[in-house]
Amino acid sequence: MQDTILVMNAGSSSLKFHLYETDGINTLEFALGGQVSGIGGKQPSFKVKDKHQKILVEQFLRPEQAQNLQLSQRVVGDWFGTVITKEPLAVGHRIVHGGPDYDRSVMVDNEVIKKLDALVSLAPLHQHNNLEPVHVIFENWPHIRQVACFDTAFHRSKPEVADRFALPQFYYKEGIRRYGFHGLSYEYIAGKMRQDYPDVMAGKVVVAHLGSGASACAMLNGRSQESTMGFTALDGLPMSTRCGQMDAGVVLWMLEQGMTHDEIQHLLYKESGLKGLSGISADVRELQGNPDPRARLAMDYFTYHIAKGITGLLTATQGLDALVFTAGIGENSPRVRYEVCKHLAWLGVSIDPDLNDNNQACISTPESNIGIYVIPTNEERVIARQTLALIRDSHRA
Amino acid sequence: MQDTILVMNAGSSSLKFHLYETDGINTLEFALGGQVSGIGGKQPSFKVKDKHQKILVEQFLRPEQAQNLQLSQRVVGDWFGTVITKEPLAVGHRIVHGGPDYDRSVMVDNEVIKKLDALVSLAPLHQHNNLEPVHVIFENWPHIRQVACFDTAFHRSKPEVADRFALPQFYYKEGIRRYGFHGLSYEYIAGKMRQDYPDVMAGKVVVAHLGSGASACAMLNGRSQESTMGFTALDGLPMSTRCGQMDAGVVLWMLEQGMTHDEIQHLLYKESGLKGLSGISADVRELQGNPDPRARLAMDYFTYHIAKGITGLLTATQGLDALVFTAGIGENSPRVRYEVCKHLAWLGVSIDPDLNDNNQACISTPESNIGIYVIPTNEERVIARQTLALIRDSHRA
Repeated sequence: MQDTILVMNAGSSSLKFHLYETDGINTLEFALGGQVSGIGGKQPSFKVKDKHQKILVEQFLRPEQAQNLQLSQRVVGDWFGTVITKEPLAVGHRIVHGGPDYDRSVMVDNEVIKKLDALVSLAPLHQHNNLEPVHVIFENWPHIRQVACFDTAFHRSKPEVADRFALPQFYYKEGIRRYGFHGLSYEYIAGKMRQDYPDVMAGKVVVAHLGSGASACAMLNGRSQESTMGFTALDGLPMSTRCGQMDAGVVLWMLEQGMTHDEIQHLLYKESGLKGLSGISADVRELQGNPDPRARLAMDYFTYHIAKGITGLLTATQGLDALVFTAGIGENSPRVRYEVCKHLAWLGVSIDPDLNDNNQACISTPESNIGIYVIPTNEERVIARQTLALIRDSHRA
Repeated sequence: MQDTILVMNAGSSSLKFHLYETDGINTLEFALGGQVSGIGGKQPSFKVKDKHQKILVEQFLRPEQAQNLQLSQRVVGDWFGTVITKEPLAVGHRIVHGGPDYDRSVMVDNEVIKKLDALVSLAPLHQHNNLEPVHVIFENWPHIRQVACFDTAFHRSKPEVADRFALPQFYYKEGIRRYGFHGLSYEYIAGKMRQDYPDVMAGKVVVAHLGSGASACAMLNGRSQESTMGFTALDGLPMSTRCGQMDAGVVLWMLEQGMTHDEIQHLLYKESGLKGLSGISADVRELQGNPDPRARLAMDYFTYHIAKGITGLLTATQGLDALVFTAGIGENSPRVRYEVCKHLAWLGVSIDPDLNDNNQACISTPESNIGIYVIPTNEERVIARQTLALIRDSHRA
């Protein structure tokens, strides 16, 4: 059997994994991927598909089998034990927070684990879950190499004025910075664009990662200069259930009304965004084309504030040569792309409203001064690549 | 003696007043203005100057004379009693918050007072103080007409997507909206520009009100379309001691660290912005040209984020025809204006770095696609005008 690299992405309600076959040097071929979904819920499930989209596993789990992330890992581990006869060469993990220091992926050792554990307070909702499988593998299979790949690393090239808040130095040193996230996606897009459109990518490019989480990143020559997201994954563009840009005074007001930290956190992360505005759904597919005025308002707010966020980023790049849409909504909603671009028309953006062909990467009209692209993202492949690169380098060192 | 209109602006640490002579119909001539400063502090003072800048009063007060706003009003009232032989025709008040309903100034009556009192929870730091003299006059001299002039009213023309946050409908109905502030200043500038440059003002204009509080407003044909400030005077551009745009997740993090509401509020309102970033001073005059790298960082952050805020607003206007600087820093710091415009150069802005002449309203170079103006603001005159207009209308009605 061929060598493999396993990519893991552990969240609060799902545990995703992707397996890549590799020669250990250059090649990476996707073999299979799957996930446990609905962790902690009433109807968790376990699914695995191979590279031809053939379903290898599709089963509902009993709630007690996937009560938490640890138990869900056992489900995945048990299944792997039955089908994979050879341990993976290495495991790459998606870690949301690399803190101020990690500007690239890193091989996991005792010291790294300590550093990453210390970052939990910066991203309490995500970091702890991301690290769970790292701990389990480190304790049970200490010989398996692990690589931590960060959503923040790509943005460490931002200039200091785009990295700070206007707070006393003390808070900056404590780690209160505008980290930006979705960095693994941005790295994938930058690499893909550099390969297919090197001249474009050498210029001023904004990538809009529009999934259930959403942010935009302004790049010069493929390096991050600005991001709409700040300290947490809450700031910036409106999202499916997250509020995006929010006056800190609103949080103070909520405290004055007697709301607790946890109630405010739940509201801003889970009940806001498209879901909160519409009162109907968090899903663009259900809102776009829905004649209910609340659905229309939610979509109008969404596309206006995406455009506003993108426009603000242009101060960092001093202009725009190309705009790339990616992630679930960015790749699949021509309506959202069209509405966002309409708000950017004054910059010289022009796209064909009827162009629904997602197989075409460049969707700007010939008259457009700015190239508009739709590029499917692939964060897992970036993690696999970074993991392969690090184990290859460690052999050489 | 001529009829007068008295303009009052009551804050937490100062009580300002301006007296205008009027024929009750059209004319308004500034007669004198003064303030009690340092209210509640160790060395309060009382100053009055006439229209020729001649000092009429300049005295230190004993701390117990100006321990609070009520006592300070007595100082002003006593002095007025000795010099003004005729009651003012009307008193106009600067009220920071008009809530969602008031889109213009209003004559004060019992019902209006009730409505304004109910808005205290939306702006607890300001509204209560603003209303204090309204109450005092209403109770003691009920026959004197009073007019409430709002900092929020000018922005009520904003489209709904610029007025909302991405929160559930409930919060919108509770009054959690992007009000925007500095509306009296914007109204003054819009009027002055309309008078002096009507063609410019018919287009896409951003006004940057840069004082110790700072915001920018995007206008179409003189009507507000967007503002950098949101629900409170905390959001948007960085300010002397206020943070400006802040990730709501930072407030949640501060709560997790055990900070109280009041500690967070104090930090974000009083210890952040230029003061927090530099650790040196909240005053641009002390920071610009200061070789300390922290001063440089604070100024760089300040001008970059002003430009970024302005750029974001352009989504609402679909471009920029003219940019107006006003208020303390906007009027008096060529350095800040130059650095902000440098960040906007890609839009076609060009200003002369050596142009320090504040008497010249238009400071863009002939090559600039965008007119840059410096217009001194005068919020008190707007209040006097609105007050005069309302009492005139009430006579007609």
